[in-house]
Amino acid sequence: MNELLRTDLALEEKESFEGDGGEISGVKLTENEKDDINGRVTVVDIFNKKGAKSMNKPVGKYITLESDYMGVDDSEYIEKLQKELADIIGELIGNMKKGISVLVVGLGNRDVTSDSLGPRTTEKVHITRHLEESESNVSGIIPGVMAFTGIESAQIVKGVIDEIKPNLVIAIDALAARSVLRLGKTIQLTNTGIQPGSGVGNHRNSLTEASLGVPVIAIGVPTVVTAAALVYDTSEAFIEALKSSAYSSTIGESVEKLSNAQRYELIRDIIEPKLGPMFVTPKDIDEKIRVLSEIVSGGINIALA
Amino acid sequence: MNELLRTDLALEEKESFEGDGGEISGVKLTENEKDDINGRVTVVDIFNKKGAKSMNKPVGKYITLESDYMGVDDSEYIEKLQKELADIIGELIGNMKKGISVLVVGLGNRDVTSDSLGPRTTEKVHITRHLEESESNVSGIIPGVMAFTGIESAQIVKGVIDEIKPNLVIAIDALAARSVLRLGKTIQLTNTGIQPGSGVGNHRNSLTEASLGVPVIAIGVPTVVTAAALVYDTSEAFIEALKSSAYSSTIGESVEKLSNAQRYELIRDIIEPKLGPMFVTPKDIDEKIRVLSEIVSGGINIALA
Amino acid sequence: MNELLRTDLALEEKESFEGDGGEISGVKLTENEKDDINGRVTVVDIFNKKGAKSMNKPVGKYITLESDYMGVDDSEYIEKLQKELADIIGELIGNMKKGISVLVVGLGNRDVTSDSLGPRTTEKVHITRHLEESESNVSGIIPGVMAFTGIESAQIVKGVIDEIKPNLVIAIDALAARSVLRLGKTIQLTNTGIQPGSGVGNHRNSLTEASLGVPVIAIGVPTVVTAAALVYDTSEAFIEALKSSAYSSTIGESVEKLSNAQRYELIRDIIEPKLGPMFVTPKDIDEKIRVLSEIVSGGINIALA
Amino acid sequence: MNELLRTDLALEEKESFEGDGGEISGVKLTENEKDDINGRVTVVDIFNKKGAKSMNKPVGKYITLESDYMGVDDSEYIEKLQKELADIIGELIGNMKKGISVLVVGLGNRDVTSDSLGPRTTEKVHITRHLEESESNVSGIIPGVMAFTGIESAQIVKGVIDEIKPNLVIAIDALAARSVLRLGKTIQLTNTGIQPGSGVGNHRNSLTEASLGVPVIAIGVPTVVTAAALVYDTSEAFIEALKSSAYSSTIGESVEKLSNAQRYELIRDIIEPKLGPMFVTPKDIDEKIRVLSEIVSGGINIALA
Repeated sequence: MNELLRTDLALEEKESFEGDGGEISGVKLTENEKDDINGRVTVVDIFNKKGAKSMNKPVGKYITLESDYMGVDDSEYIEKLQKELADIIGELIGNMKKGISVLVVGLGNRDVTSDSLGPRTTEKVHITRHLEESESNVSGIIPGVMAFTGIESAQIVKGVIDEIKPNLVIAIDALAARSVLRLGKTIQLTNTGIQPGSGVGNHRNSLTEASLGVPVIAIGVPTVVTAAALVYDTSEAFIEALKSSAYSSTIGESVEKLSNAQRYELIRDIIEPKLGPMFVTPKDIDEKIRVLSEIVSGGINIALA
Repeated sequence: MNELLRTDLALEEKESFEGDGGEISGVKLTENEKDDINGRVTVVDIFNKKGAKSMNKPVGKYITLESDYMGVDDSEYIEKLQKELADIIGELIGNMKKGISVLVVGLGNRDVTSDSLGPRTTEKVHITRHLEESESNVSGIIPGVMAFTGIESAQIVKGVIDEIKPNLVIAIDALAARSVLRLGKTIQLTNTGIQPGSGVGNHRNSLTEASLGVPVIAIGVPTVVTAAALVYDTSEAFIEALKSSAYSSTIGESVEKLSNAQRYELIRDIIEPKLGPMFVTPKDIDEKIRVLSEIVSGGINIALA
Repeated sequence: MNELLRTDLALEEKESFEGDGGEISGVKLTENEKDDINGRVTVVDIFNKKGAKSMNKPVGKYITLESDYMGVDDSEYIEKLQKELADIIGELIGNMKKGISVLVVGLGNRDVTSDSLGPRTTEKVHITRHLEESESNVSGIIPGVMAFTGIESAQIVKGVIDEIKPNLVIAIDALAARSVLRLGKTIQLTNTGIQPGSGVGNHRNSLTEASLGVPVIAIGVPTVVTAAALVYDTSEAFIEALKSSAYSSTIGESVEKLSNAQRYELIRDIIEPKLGPMFVTPKDIDEKIRVLSEIVSGGINIALA
Repeated sequence: MNELLRTDLALEEKESFEGDGGEISGVKLTENEKDDINGRVTVVDIFNKKGAKSMNKPVGKYITLESDYMGVDDSEYIEKLQKELADIIGELIGNMKKGISVLVVGLGNRDVTSDSLGPRTTEKVHITRHLEESESNVSGIIPGVMAFTGIESAQIVKGVIDEIKPNLVIAIDALAARSVLRLGKTIQLTNTGIQPGSGVGNHRNSLTEASLGVPVIAIGVPTVVTAAALVYDTSEAFIEALKSSAYSSTIGESVEKLSNAQRYELIRDIIEPKLGPMFVTPKDIDEKIRVLSEIVSGGINIALA
């Protein structure tokens, strides 16, 4: 898979198989409509190596909370989403819940609006590890990006974990999606942690149970698509439009005969030398990040209280 | 011209005519290579109504300082650019220079990295209006965006001008370019002020001598292209690649037969319903804004000292 | 009255008369215990010129909401205080309430924690003036301090008012108290606006109905005491301690014989050349400002919804 | 020594002995007037246990750079101070200089202006550890305060050191001074690291070679005095004034007869129950921190280039 066209969302990866009937060996999909939030909870369960290989993601659970209304500044609705999220977190934590110590990690760059979800969420999490009278034990860290620290976020987190030995890590990150339509409208939770090369800017190292020695729940929200993905997306629509339009009936058909691999290659040849790494992001990204950090921190606070 | 494909840069507007020979009645172009900065200063002089109509921009001077190296954090090079910029500002101010009072206006949204050039530059300008012993008289204001104030920036600026009656306004703004290649590498200065619909987000109202009663120099740096412009740009390259590639020799030719108007329509049909307002911005936009705000504020400080 | 020992709180001014029996001609005091917030609402009503002269404050209503628990991050309690505050604002607005347009002004310096209450509160106010479908009409402005703008806050506000012509101004400001014990635990509301020389740093100009042509409600919270006030306060305690202690029974008595005027003079002689303008502020001022800005913005949002 | 009256400055500790002739066994003092900066460099060398005990500070070098003009925004003067500072850092690093890897640690709370020197300085340090082509190896971390992380800064730093194993730590911190006159006008550098209980807010844990396994240079600037220290300071002046003034010739003399211990006790009895932890800070602390972070980061950047 061309790296410029990657997605951090298991759901999008799954959808890319839908032309093939949608059934993938080793992967189970469960959808639940949630009428009270006008949304949906989808569980993508990758349960063996074959599934992992097909999906290009490790074995584990990927739970997605979706709603078109997400990101709108409506305090009642935000509260509903927080509760839904808390339920999902509770499910992922499972029976380890009572009395565990949790380190919340806010990944990303506070100074780039679209990459600031992790830091801004972590700032709003109720930190209790230092309070003697507290029943919960929550700590938090914002490691910062390599341009400012010179150190991989993963190394900073590893060092802190070795010092304070939490039972669980919850890592929050802004993600790159394939489709512009998902930006700010989807929250993905997974018990597989953060994979190398994920996240906005594609610069994260691994934060997983294997690398850290502690279970890692990753919570991510797509806030950008790469420019290449946007062009690829729209080129599809472009071809479709050419095919069906009055402009030219033959062009689209010819392009359609290209295999997916040929199309990828074509787009990459066009995009890569021209653009360098570019992000596409909604105009009101600051407002969206503000609301989403409230939703995610609220969900965590309810789940860990 | 489709609004989604607009550019705030007179230079880009000029370039779009280049297929037609490049000569436009009422517009004069002067280019100066600047070897010491490995760059170029270009003056687009729109000197009559015919030129204004062709260029879709008011009569006046548009001076562009370009360099591929711009935005790199190199203090010696930054200093050179500041001096070059100060010269251009001095030229635009002309013989009004001695003892004038200047209001610097930082337009845009401090909380959206790509739109924060105006506020961040204004913060670094030497403010002297309140200092009794100072020879210069520089004041500054960051009006904020409508989502936070409920008021047009232009109204706030107008109100302040009526109170303090400066001799000159310098307005700084992040711009939208047509080409991704210009992002962060071009500074445009003009004595025509800010036009309605310019700027990142396309939400500024007019800040001109006609609307404010004071001459207005606008300084802008392109920090985003709209997603539509990106797709349009790449669709051109897409067609070119199709034409010349082994994939299909006939497609490109067919698309090429579409008129420009037909192509615009096609792109718009694809993009508009799908995307809503989206920005494309470089991954390292925070670093670029930091350096560019230093360059622009430094240029202003030298010019007004 | 020595300027270094000033207070922005009418309540403290009133208390300074308490040794004289507490009755001041032209001033009426009403206290209401509020058991649900473990606090108190006090109305100081200065109703004629004589009262104004005694109190060194203009004729008008000064309503104070006090509670020792204020500033603690407890969302249920914060909500109670917001409602209480909304009631007081509603009372001050009176029968002008329906459909009025309100300009909220956040005074002070965002970069000095103790002086950032105004800006931080205004950021959290629901701005609706630009929304067509909204029933309320609320705009907001953060004028910034003179060191960054070169312009008096009052001039910027005046300019904006002349442009948008609101029916009411609500100005929020951090105040200087006399007593350290009040810091962050008192909210003062008044229909007399902001007086020259009030506020943290003692640098505000007048924002009153007389100066702006619009009624002005000022909401303030004491966040600093001047160093001089602290020393004066403690010198009183010092003398008291000297008098009553085993250390020395005669000293205190001797100092006690000094008149108030003599004591002021003495303190000023010691403090002024030595200190320059110094602020005393609680160690956890960032947390306090965060909570207080939530309380005040919440109160305004409820009152204006 | 009463904790409320502590100072983080070795120089102030030394000065408190001056009534006793100024000579302390185990401590050597060297002063150098620096005419080009209108300032002074003082080396307090504590060279044995006896000196350490007298000074209440560990054996090591404490170098102080002082100037009344420090903190003023004058770029030429700032450059001179940066070079002076770089020389002192070079001296403290000594012969380990070539090719060493350095971790810069910014202690303190970014959200409290007077405590933000460490974070703001570290942000301006040239980070090179991640750059392959760089000759230097500088990394940086801003651990944040316990209220936001739930973790001791010292633990976070320890964890990171265990991961990246630097040769040297440079820790930057805002300090508490005894005298208001020193605020923002003194930079202290020491090869003994950070002691428990030092810093603004008195909440740092130990960052020393013993605790971290790596040499630690600490750079600190006093930005606050505790309210208790201020009152103590002024009470001295108070007594002095009483003694010498026309008001009363006998009071001061009586108080003067109290021993230092008695006076401390007296002040503490007055201050402690009344105030809680309070900071005294200059009104223009934001400007001072901005300039001082430029001076300190500049000095580090020159020394490590």
